Amino acid sequence: MTKKAFQDYYPDYFSHCYGCGRLNEHGLQIKSYWDGEESVCIHIPKPCYTGGAPGYAYGGLIASLIDCHSMGTAAAATYRAENREMGTQPALRFMTASLHVDYLLPTPLDGQIEIRGKVKGVNGRKVVVESRLLAGGKVCARGEVVAVQVPQHLTPADTKK
Amino acid sequence: MTKKAFQDYYPDYFSHCYGCGRLNEHGLQIKSYWDGEESVCIHIPKPCYTGGAPGYAYGGLIASLIDCHSMGTAAAATYRAENREMGTQPALRFMTASLHVDYLLPTPLDGQIEIRGKVKGVNGRKVVVESRLLAGGKVCARGEVVAVQVPQHLTPADTKK
Repeated sequence: MTKKAFQDYYPDYFSHCYGCGRLNEHGLQIKSYWDGEESVCIHIPKPCYTGGAPGYAYGGLIASLIDCHSMGTAAAATYRAENREMGTQPALRFMTASLHVDYLLPTPLDGQIEIRGKVKGVNGRKVVVESRLLAGGKVCARGEVVAVQVPQHLTPADTKK
Repeated sequence: MTKKAFQDYYPDYFSHCYGCGRLNEHGLQIKSYWDGEESVCIHIPKPCYTGGAPGYAYGGLIASLIDCHSMGTAAAATYRAENREMGTQPALRFMTASLHVDYLLPTPLDGQIEIRGKVKGVNGRKVVVESRLLAGGKVCARGEVVAVQVPQHLTPADTKK
């Protein structure tokens, strides 16, 4: 049995995202999990996601991974804070209010990328997630993302699907 | 005769980027132009670039468009500042030092996206570009990107290609 990722608990309606939707066959389909107090996502980029210089990952891919991993972390952290199992109703889904990425080093494209997230703060329906992106044993980027919970009135009635 | 975009002047070596490389057949191949003091990029997103909610564009796509359009703007602005025609040697190419995006409104996926950039400041080899992303007649996102010129020693000797 394979452990379910944060994104596997999203209702179908919210599962078409290019970055993290399990129902988007063209997308990145990232998967995030808890590792103690940190969340972790491992991603092996396809060669087409090259950046400005050959051999290095595209900055937009790095931003995308940090974005979606942070949204998943915000949802998982909120379930935790509410002492609820992931996937219980009402479903939690976050959207990005702001995204900041500092690119510290070029990220090699020919290996595994690891993004590790940490909840920096929760303020009502707003969760701030900071993260670092590692490749080749080095921190190549840092992210800070403000996630805001999608309001219930924008969530379809039947989110059990 | 079609007017050449900023990205059409990048040397081949720097033209494989997923966001703006004209030689990346899988990528977005964005095109940026001057419109007076502003730079403009029009992009029609493919349906696969859906975001967290159906019908809206992926935040990672928005970040990617802002990122690559800002890199192009930084290069074009530096050619202008040096009173040089685009494409003259030595070739100019920028990489992203930091990227910040504020998502103001959901961006509709079923139409045209316009990104308009403006150079906020130049400090040596560093150029700050601010931009706004418009769709459906509204400003849906704002970006601020710090671009840094790729050093000559990382640029291949023959950049005339």
